[in-house]
Amino acid sequence: MAIILGKNQYGKAENRLVRIYRDHPRHEIHDINVSSALRGDFSAAHLVGDQSAVLPTDSQKQTAYAFAKGKGLLSIEDYGLDLARHYVGDVEPVEGARIEVEEFAWERAVVDGEEQDHTWVRKGQETRLAAVTIEGKGAAQQVWVTGGLKDLVILKSTGSEFAGFLQDRYTILAPTHDRVMATSLVARWRFTSTDVDWEATYTGIKKILVKQFAEVHSLALQQTLYEMGRAVLEAFGFIAEVQLSAPNKHHFVYDLSPFGLDNPGEVFHADDRPYGLIQASVIRDDAPDPGPAWTGYTGLV
Amino acid sequence: MAIILGKNQYGKAENRLVRIYRDHPRHEIHDINVSSALRGDFSAAHLVGDQSAVLPTDSQKQTAYAFAKGKGLLSIEDYGLDLARHYVGDVEPVEGARIEVEEFAWERAVVDGEEQDHTWVRKGQETRLAAVTIEGKGAAQQVWVTGGLKDLVILKSTGSEFAGFLQDRYTILAPTHDRVMATSLVARWRFTSTDVDWEATYTGIKKILVKQFAEVHSLALQQTLYEMGRAVLEAFGFIAEVQLSAPNKHHFVYDLSPFGLDNPGEVFHADDRPYGLIQASVIRDDAPDPGPAWTGYTGLV
Amino acid sequence: MAIILGKNQYGKAENRLVRIYRDHPRHEIHDINVSSALRGDFSAAHLVGDQSAVLPTDSQKQTAYAFAKGKGLLSIEDYGLDLARHYVGDVEPVEGARIEVEEFAWERAVVDGEEQDHTWVRKGQETRLAAVTIEGKGAAQQVWVTGGLKDLVILKSTGSEFAGFLQDRYTILAPTHDRVMATSLVARWRFTSTDVDWEATYTGIKKILVKQFAEVHSLALQQTLYEMGRAVLEAFGFIAEVQLSAPNKHHFVYDLSPFGLDNPGEVFHADDRPYGLIQASVIRDDAPDPGPAWTGYTGLV
Amino acid sequence: MAIILGKNQYGKAENRLVRIYRDHPRHEIHDINVSSALRGDFSAAHLVGDQSAVLPTDSQKQTAYAFAKGKGLLSIEDYGLDLARHYVGDVEPVEGARIEVEEFAWERAVVDGEEQDHTWVRKGQETRLAAVTIEGKGAAQQVWVTGGLKDLVILKSTGSEFAGFLQDRYTILAPTHDRVMATSLVARWRFTSTDVDWEATYTGIKKILVKQFAEVHSLALQQTLYEMGRAVLEAFGFIAEVQLSAPNKHHFVYDLSPFGLDNPGEVFHADDRPYGLIQASVIRDDAPDPGPAWTGYTGLV
Repeated sequence: MAIILGKNQYGKAENRLVRIYRDHPRHEIHDINVSSALRGDFSAAHLVGDQSAVLPTDSQKQTAYAFAKGKGLLSIEDYGLDLARHYVGDVEPVEGARIEVEEFAWERAVVDGEEQDHTWVRKGQETRLAAVTIEGKGAAQQVWVTGGLKDLVILKSTGSEFAGFLQDRYTILAPTHDRVMATSLVARWRFTSTDVDWEATYTGIKKILVKQFAEVHSLALQQTLYEMGRAVLEAFGFIAEVQLSAPNKHHFVYDLSPFGLDNPGEVFHADDRPYGLIQASVIRDDAPDPGPAWTGYTGLV
Repeated sequence: MAIILGKNQYGKAENRLVRIYRDHPRHEIHDINVSSALRGDFSAAHLVGDQSAVLPTDSQKQTAYAFAKGKGLLSIEDYGLDLARHYVGDVEPVEGARIEVEEFAWERAVVDGEEQDHTWVRKGQETRLAAVTIEGKGAAQQVWVTGGLKDLVILKSTGSEFAGFLQDRYTILAPTHDRVMATSLVARWRFTSTDVDWEATYTGIKKILVKQFAEVHSLALQQTLYEMGRAVLEAFGFIAEVQLSAPNKHHFVYDLSPFGLDNPGEVFHADDRPYGLIQASVIRDDAPDPGPAWTGYTGLV
Repeated sequence: MAIILGKNQYGKAENRLVRIYRDHPRHEIHDINVSSALRGDFSAAHLVGDQSAVLPTDSQKQTAYAFAKGKGLLSIEDYGLDLARHYVGDVEPVEGARIEVEEFAWERAVVDGEEQDHTWVRKGQETRLAAVTIEGKGAAQQVWVTGGLKDLVILKSTGSEFAGFLQDRYTILAPTHDRVMATSLVARWRFTSTDVDWEATYTGIKKILVKQFAEVHSLALQQTLYEMGRAVLEAFGFIAEVQLSAPNKHHFVYDLSPFGLDNPGEVFHADDRPYGLIQASVIRDDAPDPGPAWTGYTGLV
Repeated sequence: MAIILGKNQYGKAENRLVRIYRDHPRHEIHDINVSSALRGDFSAAHLVGDQSAVLPTDSQKQTAYAFAKGKGLLSIEDYGLDLARHYVGDVEPVEGARIEVEEFAWERAVVDGEEQDHTWVRKGQETRLAAVTIEGKGAAQQVWVTGGLKDLVILKSTGSEFAGFLQDRYTILAPTHDRVMATSLVARWRFTSTDVDWEATYTGIKKILVKQFAEVHSLALQQTLYEMGRAVLEAFGFIAEVQLSAPNKHHFVYDLSPFGLDNPGEVFHADDRPYGLIQASVIRDDAPDPGPAWTGYTGLV
């Protein structure tokens, strides 16, 4: 028996980078949080502290900022591809790279009914996600891209039931045929192509997710999630899989009966913890193997 | 010399309450975080543990939920007034009450271009604030109401300078005539009336704040804040004072010169800490004394 | 009626500074978060954007770091006094300064029973606080110093009651004669001298707070707070006032009766929100006026 | 091509449970955050909203609290095993269960040099972790247990270098032979047995991690992590693998030269973001396959 180095990676996490395009009077803004992780044979660094194969995380920071100028930052998927290709292609010891990007949306400030050219209010709604993984050099190189969103907080005040569930000795919950359903949705989708209109796809997927949440009469949060994933896959042939994670943000009907008041679904306590957490993948039965597509920066080890 | 009890108050903080109006097919939602604090002679509780004058904080929680049904919850200022008047008017030992409310905005989900009747997406932008303070019983009763907002994140990519400043031996900052200016604005305003269209006033003030941020060519964040406050006071005669607190969310131009790249205000590092913090009050010279209007729930002691 | 500039201040918030003393093989560490705010006549900056009286917040940052070397950083109260005296004394337009410091404690790593010379583990318990306010120049200069702590999470599993309270129509709480009492204590104290052994005083006060929490049989959290404050004042003649703010971190006895299990104070749900919040000042009846001692950096406006 | 349901699970996350043992005058406290997730064939719920195989997440909450009384809560690994065995063994549709527990340590309050029987101060240091995964029924049942810790913030003021690294065109970092090294360590370890003294093992591992951080002269954070993992494996034969994730919490030497001050590693700026992030697994070469041991509650999809 010997003790050996297992999986490992390293990089620079959470570079908070803002890119302004100001070539025209109507400026554009892109506001991101970008992390990079490099994979390869870095065993000398671990075993004897030899850094000769280690590109410093500081260099990765410099690269992230330099690429936002040199290569540009329009779609976060393309920006991630540029960075990942650079690390694997240009830095000899690097055999794989993982780039993760969060994007924070801004909307133009509106003054007297007019959108402003160079003032924005942070939108504050969901955070957009992208992750690019590249492995291998030259002809053997493989690329995986995922998109996604998190913190899309959505609620419906009717059209949701929870009944007919399994009961055991610890089941005291009463069934309900009309409840508030709310979640802070995390959705991720896996592309099978990089020849994609990233912006239109993101906008389209978000619309579908909201539509399904609104229109599916929900017998279970599970059902709503599945219908979300299914509709996305039906709309976009180049998406192989959708992964959904949805905390059930409980809104408990408040008991006002001690005070002589009815409460037919009008006053709720929005509880913090605990919360139900429902997670599901919806996938094509011929989807290619995900490989490292879902293996996040903080999820490798 | 004796040791005595000084100022004190107690209450129930952060009741997370959601009120749905469902009398019509088009539901309405109000999502708040409400805290109450009671003031009066509670010295027996402090000195000898005698609770006979102490209305439990649990009762305050029940009251908050019951009032959302019995009295309703439309404008948070009115809801706060209802609660404060109740505590001071109906609970004998209570001589003063402070109600603080945060409101989280939701927007209707849009499906196929149509706003939904009972599905919403949390807006995610600024949080609306209200605080009501009432002191005294009967004819001597006094009322103070403040409104406000926090976490309004706003940025302009040009139209902001910082130059001509005082220099001392620790000054190494270079002046700039074109910078990104960004803040996460906190604004509070003090009403001199309760006969106010709270909703229209809130909407109007937010528009003014955004307009001033966008349109004032800023020689200093101080100047921008002052112009915000002045414009609000000019627009609303029943507002006596505006208090503004603005962290200068620094966006540092990233030095790309080592990589042979120009960076004329295009690539920035958005830094977390430290940050400049500018605070100012803009006030009418005949404003009535604020009394306890600004003395927050957590600011009394 | 005219619109005028009211109270205002500005500064650099949250400088995260670490000072290592390494003159001896046994290093020392001080880890702080320091904020400064300057007060004076800065109306030109607000009214017309004239910065000629404004020392940049960047200069304040440089000063904070330079003083940690030039003046040293041992007790945060002395460090705050050094900074405040400098701003008011050396920067002409500055008429008042407020320095707020948080200190994060580290304990020496222990290896094979021996304390290490230059490795520490962050202690993680309460954060120590200090605030220094100086107003006026020369002979008219006045100084206020407060100390404090926050996030001291403390719990007792018995020795706490809550009964005999006032009841109204919204009171459904059952009295209890044995409950878990827990809080995340914030305590601040006001010095009437600067000739103080700051370190011994801090250690002494923390011991008293913990002792009173443990030993007072509590009929109310109010009573516990008062006894804390009283004991501190009795022990330290140079402290004029203690302000305490204590969220009642509710631990609800979980109802296990549906499952045929007794629960005599053994299994609890630790709830997040809402929470009771009890606040009180304990003060000497001959305490000098606090002036701006309690007017925090973020509390002026 | 068809669209199908992929991996899925559901459960109740973040039950904040406190267990007091009060059979003796010297009480004991266990303070945890427990999450459960169930796996099996829940496709009917996803596809048609049929809940008949779905044990409600509310029942999982009740079970967590009931087991803390009925089974007890001493070591979080045993508590997790009890819950997981129950779900897989007693709830027919459940084919796999994942229990994750965080434990928050408390230390006895000390009054006049004496440890108190029923008062504690929250320790505030690292959070202890455990995760139990069980799959299969009867003789085919398999069990995986991992332990761990997070948020162990540790710093050394000397004994750390970073030099000799790979350089590319984006490398501007200067090498250093004496720097502050600090991290907020996450460590997880995989057991190959359940016949373990969980408490002694946890204490022993934490001691080793701290010792290695202190004593290894570090040429790279990678090296320190490897030496941590190796020492743990050498000490505990029933541990097959250690996974380490370490943000490099940068402490930048502050440039005081503009102010005529030397700064030989004495004054630092502790930066928030970005940060290096180093991750590695140290493993026995004959370690059994991890199966689902590392597949976290939020990591399945």
